[in-house]
Parts: sequence; C-alpha cells; structure tokens
Amino acid sequence: MTDEPTMRCAERLAAAGIDLPEPFPSFGSYVTAKRWGTQLFTAGHVSAAGDQFVTGKLGAALDVEAGRSAARLAARSLLATVQAELGELDQVESVLQLLVTVNATPDFTDHTAVADAASDVLITAFGEAGRHPRLAVGVSSLPADLALEIQATLAIKSS
Amino acid sequence: MTDEPTMRCAERLAAAGIDLPEPFPSFGSYVTAKRWGTQLFTAGHVSAAGDQFVTGKLGAALDVEAGRSAARLAARSLLATVQAELGELDQVESVLQLLVTVNATPDFTDHTAVADAASDVLITAFGEAGRHPRLAVGVSSLPADLALEIQATLAIKSS
Amino acid sequence: MTDEPTMRCAERLAAAGIDLPEPFPSFGSYVTAKRWGTQLFTAGHVSAAGDQFVTGKLGAALDVEAGRSAARLAARSLLATVQAELGELDQVESVLQLLVTVNATPDFTDHTAVADAASDVLITAFGEAGRHPRLAVGVSSLPADLALEIQATLAIKSS
Repeated sequence: MTDEPTMRCAERLAAAGIDLPEPFPSFGSYVTAKRWGTQLFTAGHVSAAGDQFVTGKLGAALDVEAGRSAARLAARSLLATVQAELGELDQVESVLQLLVTVNATPDFTDHTAVADAASDVLITAFGEAGRHPRLAVGVSSLPADLALEIQATLAIKSS
Repeated sequence: MTDEPTMRCAERLAAAGIDLPEPFPSFGSYVTAKRWGTQLFTAGHVSAAGDQFVTGKLGAALDVEAGRSAARLAARSLLATVQAELGELDQVESVLQLLVTVNATPDFTDHTAVADAASDVLITAFGEAGRHPRLAVGVSSLPADLALEIQATLAIKSS
Repeated sequence: MTDEPTMRCAERLAAAGIDLPEPFPSFGSYVTAKRWGTQLFTAGHVSAAGDQFVTGKLGAALDVEAGRSAARLAARSLLATVQAELGELDQVESVLQLLVTVNATPDFTDHTAVADAASDVLITAFGEAGRHPRLAVGVSSLPADLALEIQATLAIKSS
C-alpha cells in the first residue's frame, strides 16, 4: 500500500492501478453527496463496472472474492463522487466513518473480508487520513438486488 | 413540488396537503432527537397514522404503494419531531443525511421507490435545502414488525 | 440509575457494578474510533466476555435476555474504546447518536428491549448527557455470526 504523505491522492491511486469511473447520477429523490462546512456526507454508493451493476447476495450468488471485487468498485464510485464534489481528492482531510451494507444470506459471516476491500481503497487514496471507523452488516435485501452499498462521512480541509 | 424559496416550511407543507401529527414519544431508553450546536440528530422514526402503526414486510404483507404510504407517514413523524425540537421547521438549514431501513423480504428490490416517498416529503418541506444524500437498505426485521424506519441528520441555522 | 451530575463517569459505573474490559483491537482494515475536532466517531462494537464472543441470532439461538446481556457487553466495549481514545470518559460531552444492529430472524420483534440494555449502560456512564437518539434494526447477518453491533457518535468537551 502506498503511503507517502507527500503524494497526491491521484498519484497514490495511479500507483496502485486504481482508476475512477465517471461519477454515477442519483437514481431517485436524493443527491449523491452534500457538503456542509467542513463535512461531506455521501449517499450509499454501489458496485458498477461500466453500465453493469454487480447484483446478488453474498453467501448465495456471490462468493467472498466476488464481494471484495464489488466492494472495490463501490469504493471507486464513492471516490469519483467525492472528487466531483470537491474538485480534487486532496481536499479530503479525513475519512470519519464508513457504513458497509452487504446484501447477504442469514448464514453469511465474512463481512469483514468484503468490507476490508472497500476500506483498503480509501486507505490507498488518502493514506493514514483514510483510516476510518466502520460498521459492516449483512442486510436482507438492497435496491435492485445490488451486492452492497457503502456510505461515508468525510472531513474536508478548511480553505 | 412547491419550491418557492420565500415560502415558509409550514406553507409549503400546507400547499402540498401534508399535515404533521403530534410528535411521537420515545418507546425506550432513547430520545427522539438531540441538538448539538448547529446539528440535529434524530432517532429512527416510524410509520403511524393516529395510534395505528404500519407493520409488515415489504415484499410480503405490504406492496410498494403501501410502503410509500408508510414512508410518507414516517417522514411526517420525523418533521413533527424536528418542529417540536426547534420550535419551527424554518430553523432547518439543510438535511444532511437520511437512512431508510425497510423491513423487507430477501427478494425485495424496490427500496428506492419506497424511500423516495420519504425523501419527497422532506424536499416538499424544505425545498432545495431538503435534498439529501441517502442510504436505503432492506433489513430482516424491525421493532414490533414496523414497516420501516427513517433516521436523519440535519443542519440548523445559526441564530 | 445513578445520575448525580457531580459524579465522575468511573464512579457512576462502579456504583452500578459495571467494569470495562480492555479495549478490543480492530479485526480488519478499520480503526475502532476516530476523533475529529469535538466529535468522536466509533466503529461497530461487539459483544465479548474475555475472549468469548456472543454469537447467534436473536429469535433463534438467542432469546431477549441473552440479547440484552450481549448489548450490555457491547456497550462496555464501546466505553472501553472511548476511554482509551479520550483518556477519560469525563471528556465526553454528549452521546449524539447510536445505531444498534441486531442479528435477527425475520420474525424477531423485540429490538427495543435488546437495544435498551446498551443505551442504559451509556446513560449510567454519562447521566443525562448519555441520553441519545437511536436507530435499532434487525440485520440478516453479522461478521462471524456476532449477536449484535453498536456504533456511536459522541461529542467531546472543548478543552
């Protein structure tokens, strides 16, 4: 994991081979992010590669590796929204909180491995400032049978 | 949707035919809202019409329209709490975040349509300031088999 | 419940016979708490007594009393993290929000009784300042089949 404090976020991501998609639009009566003072609140972000959404339940259609891959995509989508909202990722001071909701069967138990894949993308992007407290849970269903959603609260640098 | 910036929240709601119930009390060891500086945090708010609570799972006992109706009731209940806490809804500067937890079967997929009904009430009340990032998920069960719960974080105008 | 405003948090807990465990480490790519200005965000905290984790679903392997016992353990674990992070619990100004996710069967309905047991520990520790808005939901699964997780946002006294 690249953690040079002097590197820009885009350089860290590029060094790790992570590119960001176009930010996704909202699918309903909500906005994908909202800035308030030095805090940025985001909507739930989902897993998509191009126009393909990753759907299915962990513990059934999807195994842990498929879930980790979905989590990485959701984290990239989240970063794309943050970048669009702030102009550049370097405006992020800290990731304050992450909520990971995994579409999972009642007997699924590997939420930590799935959620780690999303968290690791944020740590790659922001370095130590990207480390965050997290709650990862299994939910019974998600919109359009999406594999997972991640929602974050971030602190923004004062200008 | 009424969005005249000069209108008061109560006027917007009245123009849309939305009236607010009495604020619900807490049902346990929690408070329904807490103000801290210019932020207001709320408890999960549920769907009730008079003393009747809307119960049952989306995807089983309840269809999408019943879920949307429940979501509107929960949003009205949330607004009643905010009004009681702040004196008037016009003290709200912005809706920062909304979490919608839908009591749903594993194969339910229409969370967005259900959650939109709650979000639309907030947008009706506050106009553009009411637009918010949102996470909508399906949970396996809720207290007393309630249909859904919504929880919000709001920004309050500095006095 | 002890609520003498002049008592220190440790005295209130001792008077109620509640002792705190060693703070638990993180089990993955996350931190257990993060301070930002006068806010403290925590990770999901789980139920453990010594090295034994309380696992199983409410409504199946666990009954309400077992759930309440698990909730008390999770609250103690949360307090241990807060104490480690702030040096002493008396630095807490207010509990702003609590999210309780109960690993529960689809027909479980007693989330409020379970969550109250966690909330009551926080109120014991902090008195009136410990009263908080809360969202309690039933999730379909949790990491390692843990019985529940609780996540909090707290306000810290300005120094």
